[in-house]
Amino acid sequence: MNVTVTQLTNEFLDSYARVGGINHLDGKNLPSKREIAVITVDLLRLLFPGYFAEEVMHLSQVKTETATLIESVLVRLEGQIRRSLEYVPPPGAKKKDLPGLARQWTLEFLASLPNVRDLLCTDVEAAYNGDPAALSKEEVILAYPFVEAIAVQRLAHELHRKQVALLPRIMTEWAHSRSGLDLHPGARIGTHFFVDHCTGTVVGETTDIGSHVKLYQGVGLVARSLAGGQALRGQKRHPTLEDRVTIYAGATIMGGDTVIGAGSTVGANVFLTHSVPANSLVISEDAKVKVMPKTDRNVPILDFQI
Amino acid sequence: MNVTVTQLTNEFLDSYARVGGINHLDGKNLPSKREIAVITVDLLRLLFPGYFAEEVMHLSQVKTETATLIESVLVRLEGQIRRSLEYVPPPGAKKKDLPGLARQWTLEFLASLPNVRDLLCTDVEAAYNGDPAALSKEEVILAYPFVEAIAVQRLAHELHRKQVALLPRIMTEWAHSRSGLDLHPGARIGTHFFVDHCTGTVVGETTDIGSHVKLYQGVGLVARSLAGGQALRGQKRHPTLEDRVTIYAGATIMGGDTVIGAGSTVGANVFLTHSVPANSLVISEDAKVKVMPKTDRNVPILDFQI
Amino acid sequence: MNVTVTQLTNEFLDSYARVGGINHLDGKNLPSKREIAVITVDLLRLLFPGYFAEEVMHLSQVKTETATLIESVLVRLEGQIRRSLEYVPPPGAKKKDLPGLARQWTLEFLASLPNVRDLLCTDVEAAYNGDPAALSKEEVILAYPFVEAIAVQRLAHELHRKQVALLPRIMTEWAHSRSGLDLHPGARIGTHFFVDHCTGTVVGETTDIGSHVKLYQGVGLVARSLAGGQALRGQKRHPTLEDRVTIYAGATIMGGDTVIGAGSTVGANVFLTHSVPANSLVISEDAKVKVMPKTDRNVPILDFQI
Repeated sequence: MNVTVTQLTNEFLDSYARVGGINHLDGKNLPSKREIAVITVDLLRLLFPGYFAEEVMHLSQVKTETATLIESVLVRLEGQIRRSLEYVPPPGAKKKDLPGLARQWTLEFLASLPNVRDLLCTDVEAAYNGDPAALSKEEVILAYPFVEAIAVQRLAHELHRKQVALLPRIMTEWAHSRSGLDLHPGARIGTHFFVDHCTGTVVGETTDIGSHVKLYQGVGLVARSLAGGQALRGQKRHPTLEDRVTIYAGATIMGGDTVIGAGSTVGANVFLTHSVPANSLVISEDAKVKVMPKTDRNVPILDFQI
Repeated sequence: MNVTVTQLTNEFLDSYARVGGINHLDGKNLPSKREIAVITVDLLRLLFPGYFAEEVMHLSQVKTETATLIESVLVRLEGQIRRSLEYVPPPGAKKKDLPGLARQWTLEFLASLPNVRDLLCTDVEAAYNGDPAALSKEEVILAYPFVEAIAVQRLAHELHRKQVALLPRIMTEWAHSRSGLDLHPGARIGTHFFVDHCTGTVVGETTDIGSHVKLYQGVGLVARSLAGGQALRGQKRHPTLEDRVTIYAGATIMGGDTVIGAGSTVGANVFLTHSVPANSLVISEDAKVKVMPKTDRNVPILDFQI
Repeated sequence: MNVTVTQLTNEFLDSYARVGGINHLDGKNLPSKREIAVITVDLLRLLFPGYFAEEVMHLSQVKTETATLIESVLVRLEGQIRRSLEYVPPPGAKKKDLPGLARQWTLEFLASLPNVRDLLCTDVEAAYNGDPAALSKEEVILAYPFVEAIAVQRLAHELHRKQVALLPRIMTEWAHSRSGLDLHPGARIGTHFFVDHCTGTVVGETTDIGSHVKLYQGVGLVARSLAGGQALRGQKRHPTLEDRVTIYAGATIMGGDTVIGAGSTVGANVFLTHSVPANSLVISEDAKVKVMPKTDRNVPILDFQI
């Protein structure tokens, strides 16, 4: 085979011309994943001052450093929000108004961060109180993947509420990649939330979560996959969890009209597709596991040993 | 305890001399994980031009930029493929032929990328059509961890088919780390594939997957763990999924002769170790969950509350 | 909305003053996550010399390079250990003794690494022997996320045993983020350990694991979540796995007095909350899955199709 770089290049160009939908060469500027990752880290520094920098920040510096960081984030975030709005304009917005709207929403977003901080304090408290392995709230903030993931979701949720497209999801997927916890920006989450261990837990777009809710790893709050796909966009498809619900590892709760009543506990690996009243304990029939000696000749799946 | 750096160094050197198998000091050059990660990102830029760079790429630049990128990838990828071939020579190859073979396979690999692009377009389409939360195909490409993971698997699969050792697995494990989705380079995957949420899903080496297959998070397509281990190498050990199969979160399908018939749906958390015919619905007995009021004195595992 | 950067800054400062517990402005220097990540990579280079550098290391260089690396790690690790000890002093230690203690423990830690290497050799061997997809031990070390995760846990465990706070958990959460495998530094793990695929598996703080134990993805070795939370700190809350136990994907084993007897096998998706004797095979009742044709009118959850 004797192909040259020129031949290879031509084959790629043919492919780019032939198959649409996965390249973006002369369209509008899409938001930049890399830039959004950098901005997200800076937002985390604003939320947890002194935790993510190499050296401790003293109170004498904090005013100057905070102002500098806000100013820097403001310009860059406004740019990414403007790209998002130009790509998917909000309903009713005119093209010429988009730059002004991007400026206004960026300011409103930054002004909402102190409230986001208040919410995050309740999450850190819930993580600390709920996990005997936690030594201090400082350890929770520094080491627990949950804190970064919920902080990013609460930030992205503010932008999602304003109907900023693309950007919020890029933010939460950045956090998802780092923690294994997939919190959709659309999910509404109350105070004192905690997900222990994080990996594999999924909270879908239209999930409603009350306060003092605790999830473990591998929990799915998911939609039924009906015929329809895109036709279902915008409908409530994911479950509602009322206050003080606990869901153990690997449980899957499905459906938009599934409501887990306040104070209920759902056991590990349960697959639940209907509502349960307040203060329920939901376990799987398979809580009755079969335990057999391997020497028993009737062991059903003998090939299933090591 | 008063050890010096010299003493510590000598203890390490003793250990390196004593325990073989985990150091590699005077062997052949192994492929470099870091270099392979950089090459993989460049291959993604060739597959999705304009998506991963900071600024939009215009049609007037695309020819020059594509040629430059191909030339740069060609040299570096050839080096890593040569290292892989020298470490594990393909059956029947002579040592003196390996550099030429590395050159030829690298060119063939790059020439196959337009076909890989065609396949990936069907995956992006499947993701968009299958997920009501997806706003646009652009959002799918930019934000969905699945797109990067399947792109890397389809790239690695081309190299795996040619019996390039080490390199393909290093590529897919790079993607696994970022998405939580573990797609072995050996798996054969048809068109219009989609894995929603990704985290925890495992597709083993000898899995066969038809077209229009949809998986959710935490799905395992895995081998029985028989006595044997290395003795089973190369055998078909993982399941076959025919066209239009859907597998919900947390289901585990096991075994090389397990075939899920076309059009079948497997419910969440099912553990399935045998074949099912076309158009089956497979659910767990535990779809009948027990729901009990916590106030009931007969609740079996009362210590299992928060 | 017309807020200025000055106004925004003041709102942030008010928030920092009002809500305590998540900022750290004039406290002691916390350990640095970023610095700990860099040190951890250098420790991995000491454990697997020649594997993580770009070019092969020759035996003539190894003495000089090892000494240089040990010296560099020693200084930086001592700094992070001192910060950890100053933040949470070990029981009975006086403040003035902490710098000396940090020096001593760092030296002891480095002196223990050859033993850690011996243990890791058994893990690499278990991974290679247990996985027919593994081509060579070199591939296992280079590509398998498990090797990095268990290496970091065994390092962190040495520091955890000495009651160094914060630092060990920051190390294991760095590895957790990369592999999806959450191994607490406190867990005691015997020789020849292997976790295949890794993503979503959780091994809690007080878990005891024997030798030749094999886990798959999504396995939880977890605590009961009793009322109490912080009150349970330090108690044995996680299971004990005796020698030669295998646990399949998605199984959850719960409770500090739950002992899985030697040689037992636990099937996929089992939820087990009590002990089983040696050589047990534990499967879920849901090994009896229901398989129904979708055309059957009595299929119970018809809306659960795609």
